[in-house]
Amino acid sequence: MGTTDETAGVDERGGRRRRASGGAEARRAKRSGSRSLQLPFIRRILPEQAVLDEEGLALIEQNADTVLEEIGIEFREDPEALQMWREAGAEVSGERVRFPKGLCRELLKTAPQTFTQHARNPERSVEIGGKATVFAPVYGPPFVRDLDNGRRYGTIDDFQNLVKLAYQAPALHHSGGTVCEPVDIPVNKRHLDMVYAHIRYSDKPFMGSVTAPERAADSVAMARMVFGEEFVEQNCVLINLINVNSPMVFDATMLGALKTYARANQGTIVTPFILAGAMSPVTVAGTLTQVLAEVLAGAAFTQLCRPGAPVIMGTFASSISMQSGAPTFGTPEPTLVLYGAAQLARRLNLPFRSGGSLCASKVCDAQAAYESAQTLTPTVMAGTNFVLHAAGWLEGGLVSSYEKFVMDCDQLAMMQQLSRGVDLSENGQAMDAIREVGPGSHYLGCAHTQANFETAFYRSPVADNNSFEQWLAEGSKTAEERANGLWKKWLAEYEAPPLDEGVDEALKEFIETTKASMPDAFS
Amino acid sequence: MGTTDETAGVDERGGRRRRASGGAEARRAKRSGSRSLQLPFIRRILPEQAVLDEEGLALIEQNADTVLEEIGIEFREDPEALQMWREAGAEVSGERVRFPKGLCRELLKTAPQTFTQHARNPERSVEIGGKATVFAPVYGPPFVRDLDNGRRYGTIDDFQNLVKLAYQAPALHHSGGTVCEPVDIPVNKRHLDMVYAHIRYSDKPFMGSVTAPERAADSVAMARMVFGEEFVEQNCVLINLINVNSPMVFDATMLGALKTYARANQGTIVTPFILAGAMSPVTVAGTLTQVLAEVLAGAAFTQLCRPGAPVIMGTFASSISMQSGAPTFGTPEPTLVLYGAAQLARRLNLPFRSGGSLCASKVCDAQAAYESAQTLTPTVMAGTNFVLHAAGWLEGGLVSSYEKFVMDCDQLAMMQQLSRGVDLSENGQAMDAIREVGPGSHYLGCAHTQANFETAFYRSPVADNNSFEQWLAEGSKTAEERANGLWKKWLAEYEAPPLDEGVDEALKEFIETTKASMPDAFS
Repeated sequence: MGTTDETAGVDERGGRRRRASGGAEARRAKRSGSRSLQLPFIRRILPEQAVLDEEGLALIEQNADTVLEEIGIEFREDPEALQMWREAGAEVSGERVRFPKGLCRELLKTAPQTFTQHARNPERSVEIGGKATVFAPVYGPPFVRDLDNGRRYGTIDDFQNLVKLAYQAPALHHSGGTVCEPVDIPVNKRHLDMVYAHIRYSDKPFMGSVTAPERAADSVAMARMVFGEEFVEQNCVLINLINVNSPMVFDATMLGALKTYARANQGTIVTPFILAGAMSPVTVAGTLTQVLAEVLAGAAFTQLCRPGAPVIMGTFASSISMQSGAPTFGTPEPTLVLYGAAQLARRLNLPFRSGGSLCASKVCDAQAAYESAQTLTPTVMAGTNFVLHAAGWLEGGLVSSYEKFVMDCDQLAMMQQLSRGVDLSENGQAMDAIREVGPGSHYLGCAHTQANFETAFYRSPVADNNSFEQWLAEGSKTAEERANGLWKKWLAEYEAPPLDEGVDEALKEFIETTKASMPDAFS
Repeated sequence: MGTTDETAGVDERGGRRRRASGGAEARRAKRSGSRSLQLPFIRRILPEQAVLDEEGLALIEQNADTVLEEIGIEFREDPEALQMWREAGAEVSGERVRFPKGLCRELLKTAPQTFTQHARNPERSVEIGGKATVFAPVYGPPFVRDLDNGRRYGTIDDFQNLVKLAYQAPALHHSGGTVCEPVDIPVNKRHLDMVYAHIRYSDKPFMGSVTAPERAADSVAMARMVFGEEFVEQNCVLINLINVNSPMVFDATMLGALKTYARANQGTIVTPFILAGAMSPVTVAGTLTQVLAEVLAGAAFTQLCRPGAPVIMGTFASSISMQSGAPTFGTPEPTLVLYGAAQLARRLNLPFRSGGSLCASKVCDAQAAYESAQTLTPTVMAGTNFVLHAAGWLEGGLVSSYEKFVMDCDQLAMMQQLSRGVDLSENGQAMDAIREVGPGSHYLGCAHTQANFETAFYRSPVADNNSFEQWLAEGSKTAEERANGLWKKWLAEYEAPPLDEGVDEALKEFIETTKASMPDAFS
């Protein structure tokens, strides 16, 4: 929580020291005309919010064990996986795997509690787990939207733009994965252009393809060209999203990608994808039970593939409208699932992924913001380690929004500031200021304010705090309209980070050869 | 946190039992065509979020004691107050009062840790303090705004409309006070119409006038007509907002109102009104120190007026833009102040007021929603007991917005659901559902879903979760546009609660007589 010394208990990448020097760095960045200050990943100082006590957590764990033992999980169309489970001591019947009590937890003892995902720029490497929180952009939308051109299918140009925006965003610590689907490129080849865009247009860590085992292998191959074969063998340079086909099914596609990445020592996020009421029970405790059982099975399986392979407990939990079946976001029940799942992950000693800036709204209006904030704040306060969909998510994840992207980044930067907690240094205590000013005066000109005002308060590049009259005079713009100007500014100021020419050539050659080796497929 | 029994540990007014019966009540309300289900005040089950540890809290308390002892607080233009402090053992020099260490805390031992504010409908009485949270609408705006008529000065019609909307809102537990300034009525008479509107058009608890001692006295007089003289003497029926003129000044107006209410055994909220950087230091810890010192002095003074009088520790903390001096909302620093102040209030054994749905935005756009959500969630998770400005606040508090009012009420209802925590009953655990459905199926039709779907998930009356195509077909409405329809629906469905005719006559006569006794004043 608070500390009374400028440096006590805070890693040099983390909070207080960075805050102390933030102003100077920002001024330097401004003078040199370079892009804005990049923030390191968050090291949380605030304690995590809990929603379940020991008794409640133990009850859910016991129920999850019962699910694993009595009902079991299906591993479909993957005889190898079934054989691996048989050899590990599970009971396999058809594609159904039932787990003796304690087996999954025993296997998970080799999984790292925290690990580093390396970026090609070592300054952008991130820690996954523990007190670290990493923000990554939206993943998966087939559509994009901006105020000028409206809603349309995503293209590789949009994909590159979104990678560039993530690179520009100070509080996005990660370049993400499928920031939108580039539907102008054949489905069996687009993963190459996506991975290349992350490498070429950013130096932040990124994600590999999971839509087929060979695309996962291509992602690993490209990573090896950037980081070197041996480095990749020993270190995590890719984090990859493995969704459970809830309830209680792993399908062949995801198992194929999982095995490829785990055997290559790369990170996987095992994520039950839940619209509660459809893919899980309509209750919070029931959903948590199923999520835990699914994660235990899937995460343990990574350790069968390669003991020690990094694995993250994920949840994606929304609920559905019981009238229409449509997913809803920012509502209380998924929030409780998020908090509870974070607690369960900590007890499993696994890093935790969930949340983001999720919403159902079609446009960047108040609904989008309420829903996103009501997802993001719990995400951070729960102590989530890896936050996918932290920026750009619109319309239930069908759309990557340019305006939403920069609006969310503003919120992320505020969450980062909040996570630093209260500065209790002598300067933070400000007793000199209170003495100097005294009753009935004001602090605007006092020495302490003069010394601190540049970095004292978070400044939003999106919010308008001017008077009503000034706001009118400036065109009565909504936040969405101001955000439209901001992403254009970020793109205009974008400068690509340097990339070794030999590496670039090798990547391009690999992509060309691989593409030439197969016909185009569009579905 | 969670409970394993339907009724364990939950008061009958509070969470679980209400949830179990909520569906049936809602259906009854729907059938009978009556207004929507009213929710009782919140009894929080979730633990409070902390940002300071024991060491940090003790440091701030020690610094606040130093402020009280060495710098002191000014009680201006009120010789009686100075004399009272002198007799209590404080050191008085001019208008400056310095407090021997421990004096204020000693005086506060007679203040109640929790108390009931009675409503004229006993079902609407609220508990203030402890695990209770009460939502009250916006207080103070001179302007109102709606989509049809834009921004304009508030009138008594607007005031009555906002009281009616608060009456209709299930998750507003309180009718509030100056929901807008009715500027069409003379400033020295409008308090009579405001208090009357709360009594006549609602049966929820409400607030008295504080703008002059005689207006406070009028408020008490009107309350006595409703509740009876003896009842008011023994019980709190009015809560009243006493702002500190920060830094470290109580002015004669506020002291006059404070004395009137405290001596009448009515509740006061002693609230340092802080735009940090102007009225307090630019740091969180410095602001907390000053807030605590001011509250200690003001709250202790209520106990000099009448030992045992209900008093609430308040904070209103925003920060200012260091470029323009304009207040900003929903940013990290005021959030930390809010969390920290809630912790300090609990250590003082005083109920706590802060937060709300605050924003700087001029319209109900994404900025308004982000800022409001980033204030409201911390307000609730900090364990705030009395939440003023919970609905309708726009443009830094200059505007009461009709659309924002109902949008905020939607968020409040979600916060109420969230505060109930996780249902760990057998039905909540849903093991039967998991067994029934099994791997690869879905929960839509299972027995457990059928039994629970009506009350399982919060349903927003504002959010649109439909498909993009359906949303387009319905006119591509923003949340603000949908909210416009919702407040009109609430007003159309409004039915006044019954009021004893004799009481109504007495109130009207009192208002007429009082108004006739003085000339109109408009400033």
